[in-house]
Amino acid sequence: MTSTGAARPGAAFGPDVYAARRERAAAHARAAGLAGLLVSPGPDLAYFTGYAPPETERLTLLAIPADGPGATVVVPLLERGDLAAAPGADGLDVVTWRDGDDEHDAAARLLRADGSYAVSDATWALHVLGLQRALPGARFTAFTDAVPTLRAVKDAQEVERLAAAGAAADAAFADVLGVAFAGRRERDVAADLDRFLRAHGHEQVDFTLVCSGPNGADPHHDAGDRVIEPGDLVVLDFGGLRDGYGSDTSRTVLVAGGADDARAAQQREVHDVVRRAQQAGVEAVRPGATCQDVDRAARAVIVEAGYGEHFVHRTGHGIGTTTHEPPYMVEGEDRPVEPGMCFSVEPGVYLPGRFGVRIEDIVVAFPPDAPEGARRLNTSTHHLLTVR
Amino acid sequence: MTSTGAARPGAAFGPDVYAARRERAAAHARAAGLAGLLVSPGPDLAYFTGYAPPETERLTLLAIPADGPGATVVVPLLERGDLAAAPGADGLDVVTWRDGDDEHDAAARLLRADGSYAVSDATWALHVLGLQRALPGARFTAFTDAVPTLRAVKDAQEVERLAAAGAAADAAFADVLGVAFAGRRERDVAADLDRFLRAHGHEQVDFTLVCSGPNGADPHHDAGDRVIEPGDLVVLDFGGLRDGYGSDTSRTVLVAGGADDARAAQQREVHDVVRRAQQAGVEAVRPGATCQDVDRAARAVIVEAGYGEHFVHRTGHGIGTTTHEPPYMVEGEDRPVEPGMCFSVEPGVYLPGRFGVRIEDIVVAFPPDAPEGARRLNTSTHHLLTVR
Repeated sequence: MTSTGAARPGAAFGPDVYAARRERAAAHARAAGLAGLLVSPGPDLAYFTGYAPPETERLTLLAIPADGPGATVVVPLLERGDLAAAPGADGLDVVTWRDGDDEHDAAARLLRADGSYAVSDATWALHVLGLQRALPGARFTAFTDAVPTLRAVKDAQEVERLAAAGAAADAAFADVLGVAFAGRRERDVAADLDRFLRAHGHEQVDFTLVCSGPNGADPHHDAGDRVIEPGDLVVLDFGGLRDGYGSDTSRTVLVAGGADDARAAQQREVHDVVRRAQQAGVEAVRPGATCQDVDRAARAVIVEAGYGEHFVHRTGHGIGTTTHEPPYMVEGEDRPVEPGMCFSVEPGVYLPGRFGVRIEDIVVAFPPDAPEGARRLNTSTHHLLTVR
Repeated sequence: MTSTGAARPGAAFGPDVYAARRERAAAHARAAGLAGLLVSPGPDLAYFTGYAPPETERLTLLAIPADGPGATVVVPLLERGDLAAAPGADGLDVVTWRDGDDEHDAAARLLRADGSYAVSDATWALHVLGLQRALPGARFTAFTDAVPTLRAVKDAQEVERLAAAGAAADAAFADVLGVAFAGRRERDVAADLDRFLRAHGHEQVDFTLVCSGPNGADPHHDAGDRVIEPGDLVVLDFGGLRDGYGSDTSRTVLVAGGADDARAAQQREVHDVVRRAQQAGVEAVRPGATCQDVDRAARAVIVEAGYGEHFVHRTGHGIGTTTHEPPYMVEGEDRPVEPGMCFSVEPGVYLPGRFGVRIEDIVVAFPPDAPEGARRLNTSTHHLLTVR
């Protein structure tokens, strides 16, 4: 074909929403001492324009100058019509190029030869290197380094959509509690979760991890052919997009029928440690907290319980139009948690060869109804539930 | 969740195939005067290792030194197990990093401070800028600029898979000839195509364009709510992945029941022009031909017929583990067509407000059974077929 289809489902807002986001972006750029922002196809471009073209080798780039007014999109000639139809296209200037042109020169003509620009993290190397070649005196940094909180703070409409996605994921969890686990393969339960997420309005399912027994000890296990056994702990971690915004939640359940032995006792103990760690992480969201404080608070509970070396990942990540984005709740991230940031709090303990436990909720920081803390967007119980 | 699932279906070959590909990559690097190649998640990494991790902000990078021996993967600690399970992991050295480390420093330690490296086109800006920061004396260029034919030449096993994918797409076309067009929406026919592609073994459908009547004049129209009418021309352009390799074919069909008027005469005329242009493009694949020669040959037929301004895109693109990759059949691409290159030949004519025509086949250049020309991997007839 001449090109590929749209990248991901869009969630249309009014044109004013996109224009306001671009104005806020320009303010971020000014505050960071940048000449402007360069936005590539994917969640960034969708956020600022509602336009979700394919991510191909053909350059599409939104340039938002720090000193305004307005913004310009460089777009392949053939795709001008698609751009014009985007919900946030009002007020954008458009520069087209066609096959055979040097598209990086076309983009460079919009930029200052000695300017500092931040570019979308996922901009292709082909393009960032092309821009460097076309503008050797300019300086480029990635959004995560230059304007890390650009999309991290969600407005009220976005929080509403994230809450709806979270509620749908919780409803899918309630559904999956009713299916058989013992005697079925992990991938069968994963297929159930996929179905339930879609039934509750997800237009896209990004992951349905079902990690049973020893597979639970690998935080990156997906869902395979292992047949689930009585007495297994099973880590469930699932999410996707509903109305363009993400869900992501984890619960760990116990399959009925196991022996009441030392393993069972340790399963309960570890589950309780993780439950308390998750609670501590959420409670660490208070005025003055930094992102790493959330990680430290959750980690302290696990270290204190003697399982520190088995909590092998950071505590959380942001969520929005993707299920995985800044801010990151990780040691070294000393930026403050800001009102409207939405992120996961998901500590875990992984005992190689035995089992794992993870509990994960999405939270919104300092919302109007909890201005000094966090509100969970997932509200399934944290108690250790038993499935059949 | 802690990370997202696998990026796209893999097509496992034997470990020796991946090792041979990495050796060939090192030879390409030496020929281009590079210190090595840096390969990112996506089709490049899958090609060289069979490993298809999620494309996230976490750095995974395969470094292939030009002067060998061996190659090293930088990988997040949590994902080491997934890498080890990949079909081409044998013989790879592994360097892990964990959340909170500077992953670009970890990668830089494998590289020469003053080396020139080619990086995968789709490497995230976050990482290429991070590598530049960690190694300010090194030089980076994109694969497309430095080693453009690295994956473009397919081996016999790959051509076999592409041929099977093409045959499956042809079978889907045969199936769709049997469905009703008139009175149904474009998106209904698109859903039929999706179903037929999957029925013929596609594990992933990338696009099913159904562009009827005036929508055919937009080469980027997808499939919408327009109800198809008698007498419409309908451009069908569809493909995806079968056994890890791509299909991509276009045919333009006529819906029965239209008037035998001036429009009908022009529809037949334009279809014949595009048919001859496609044939000329395929025949341009002969010893000594460059990529742009394929474009020029197809375009000349259309220009000669007076429709030159209405052929608004390049003539073709490569195909392999993606449905859209180098080499590109476009003016200015003066690299030679090499034996084993697989690409589309897809001229079109687009008459705004009226209709469009496109005919597309995938071809393999200079295969053993046609060493002086091209062999089509799509063999559906090029005659203008009538549907109901």
